[in-house]
Amino acid sequence: MAEHFSFEVLKRSRTTLARLGVIRTRRGIIETPQFIPVATVASVRALGSDDLRALGVQAIFANTYHLHLRTGEDLIRRMGGLHRFMSFDGPIFTDSGGFQAFSLGLGREHNISKIGSIFPHGRRSAERRENLTRITDEGVAFKSLVDGGWHFIDPRSAMRIQSRLGSDIVMAFDECTSPLSDYDYTREAMERTHRWAVQSLRYHDRRQAIYGIIQGGWFEDLRRESADFIKSLPFDGIAIGGSLGNCKADMHQVLEWVVPRLDARPRHLLGIGEIPDIFECVERGIDTFDCVHPTRIARRGNLYISPASGGCLENKFRISIKSSVFKDDKRPVDPRCGCPTCRMYSRAYLRHLYISNELSYFRAATVHNVYFMLRLMESIRKSIRSGKFSALKRRWMKGEQAPG
Amino acid sequence: MAEHFSFEVLKRSRTTLARLGVIRTRRGIIETPQFIPVATVASVRALGSDDLRALGVQAIFANTYHLHLRTGEDLIRRMGGLHRFMSFDGPIFTDSGGFQAFSLGLGREHNISKIGSIFPHGRRSAERRENLTRITDEGVAFKSLVDGGWHFIDPRSAMRIQSRLGSDIVMAFDECTSPLSDYDYTREAMERTHRWAVQSLRYHDRRQAIYGIIQGGWFEDLRRESADFIKSLPFDGIAIGGSLGNCKADMHQVLEWVVPRLDARPRHLLGIGEIPDIFECVERGIDTFDCVHPTRIARRGNLYISPASGGCLENKFRISIKSSVFKDDKRPVDPRCGCPTCRMYSRAYLRHLYISNELSYFRAATVHNVYFMLRLMESIRKSIRSGKFSALKRRWMKGEQAPG
Repeated sequence: MAEHFSFEVLKRSRTTLARLGVIRTRRGIIETPQFIPVATVASVRALGSDDLRALGVQAIFANTYHLHLRTGEDLIRRMGGLHRFMSFDGPIFTDSGGFQAFSLGLGREHNISKIGSIFPHGRRSAERRENLTRITDEGVAFKSLVDGGWHFIDPRSAMRIQSRLGSDIVMAFDECTSPLSDYDYTREAMERTHRWAVQSLRYHDRRQAIYGIIQGGWFEDLRRESADFIKSLPFDGIAIGGSLGNCKADMHQVLEWVVPRLDARPRHLLGIGEIPDIFECVERGIDTFDCVHPTRIARRGNLYISPASGGCLENKFRISIKSSVFKDDKRPVDPRCGCPTCRMYSRAYLRHLYISNELSYFRAATVHNVYFMLRLMESIRKSIRSGKFSALKRRWMKGEQAPG
Repeated sequence: MAEHFSFEVLKRSRTTLARLGVIRTRRGIIETPQFIPVATVASVRALGSDDLRALGVQAIFANTYHLHLRTGEDLIRRMGGLHRFMSFDGPIFTDSGGFQAFSLGLGREHNISKIGSIFPHGRRSAERRENLTRITDEGVAFKSLVDGGWHFIDPRSAMRIQSRLGSDIVMAFDECTSPLSDYDYTREAMERTHRWAVQSLRYHDRRQAIYGIIQGGWFEDLRRESADFIKSLPFDGIAIGGSLGNCKADMHQVLEWVVPRLDARPRHLLGIGEIPDIFECVERGIDTFDCVHPTRIARRGNLYISPASGGCLENKFRISIKSSVFKDDKRPVDPRCGCPTCRMYSRAYLRHLYISNELSYFRAATVHNVYFMLRLMESIRKSIRSGKFSALKRRWMKGEQAPG
């Protein structure tokens, strides 16, 4: 276990696996369950570090792949590390770079995301895989989408890069399979991931906390085997990686296979973060989430609304601000929201900015969605503390008023 | 004179026409000389209204042409007017819409800006003018660059639109000629502008202050005649419109013809605002400036630096942040600057954001340049108060240390 890193479970739900906790790092605490905004290249898109502070963002998640290829970990180290570089002094997670090496090569070619069936028309490109990524037991060679050149990452270099970036919590190097991978390949990749986990632990910078990653695709025995293996290693926390099957139900199934086998260490679900996912996965024992979803949909005009303002499963808890119904709507995005955007602007003004393609739209929208996610996580924590998580979930997931 | 609008000259330079003053409106004061950032469609590009407040922006300048064509003054009126719409409670200037009708039709076709010789290769398109704008004594018909349709603005509708927008200070409807216009045409346009000035006064909303606009191109007798005519009318303030000749010296010449004929009313120079212009024009008696320049160049990577940080006429008081020399430069953009961007970020980080095409770059850069302009204006005001304007100007314009 890394120094300066600890996790304490403060309260457990009686009826579910939801738990309230706190991760302590030398750069501050992370109250869990928590949403960790993604700052791909050391910037949460459209937000300044002053915004992160003002919104109360406790931690962010930066992408090693992009930082390595674009700016370089050596430069960032010379600049004093990620925290000083981007002027954010809270805990920073980094991934290992592996996921993007696959997903921007193979995954994007497959047209798949972490849950595969959303874009099911990608099998034809399986043969292209050889062109963009070459996976061996030593590591991954991949063609960079940034400079077009070939690069190679293995557990040792993934740990070295993250060390130079200076993040607080790093991820072990793993191979993330596609939902299109068959059993045999998924087993092979999982076993490689396990060997890489051991190597990641060996090479990682002891000043950083490190999470192991459970793989195994959508195969019960593999997921169980992977959970048992990863938890047997002295990681500071446990992450669950994709592929998580072909639909949301598959993802829930994976968590039900995996989480009950784990111990008290913090559990991170990689790359997931739509609102229903948050409820379903907190219920199944997840502590932290990183996801580009809330910030990405904000930039595309989708702004969150709470159930009290009409948000429900059907509208995905959001409005599309470009809709002409908001043309002269004087209300804030969510009348129950206290974020800077909702305190300043009407839906009509935000629609005007969006339609006019004004740069100020992007920050205003992102501020709202990030604030919304943070407040949602806060109310989830509160509900666990008071034993009312399931009631809160029912209120959100069915649009029903919860009792008491 | 509009109620709730007054201008007081607090101090005059002994050796130049520079003056220190204050415009008082019911929405707050504008200390002059002052730079007024442009908020074309009710948003200073990349900034939120919270940023305007934090930066101490006293007034902004919105464009009637864009607001009329894109969002519509009726909608903005229903939303409570510009101030409530964009959540800015300081004084707002609007132009009459005429300049853009010409410049986006004729001017852009001519490839000219307010000072013509910058892009001198445009005469061939004079014939296209008929296609995009039709000017008669009644008003201007123009083809919208927003919706492609034909629109018509005359003094009455320009005043009605600005009234509905609810700005504090409106501009009379005028015809802005091109530097390529000959004497006869410039006279004809000036006389039309004078008739329109009278009509603008007749139709304007008495709750708004109104500035008359002096035209006359780069012809001494026309500029003098226009100054005398416009100042004879009961405008609250006097604006000087383009064309201002073919180079900076021509612009200074125009001001030397015009300003000494004017009285104590506030003087606004339309659309000018590079740093040397500010010094030269304050010296020649200008009180307020609106210009997209500082915000536009920020978005393109050009960030201001003061003389103490190496800024000079030659480098236009700016650095180009994309330059590789800043790759690992830990200093803020301007080490003497106290803006939020300089307090948070290094040149290296801003370069990284710029190169990575990150949205957060635009706000960080714009914050710096706007803050820089506001502090420059503040130091100009201070220098006028203490009788040291010329020394300050020498220090900036020659890179020399001013005496005492």
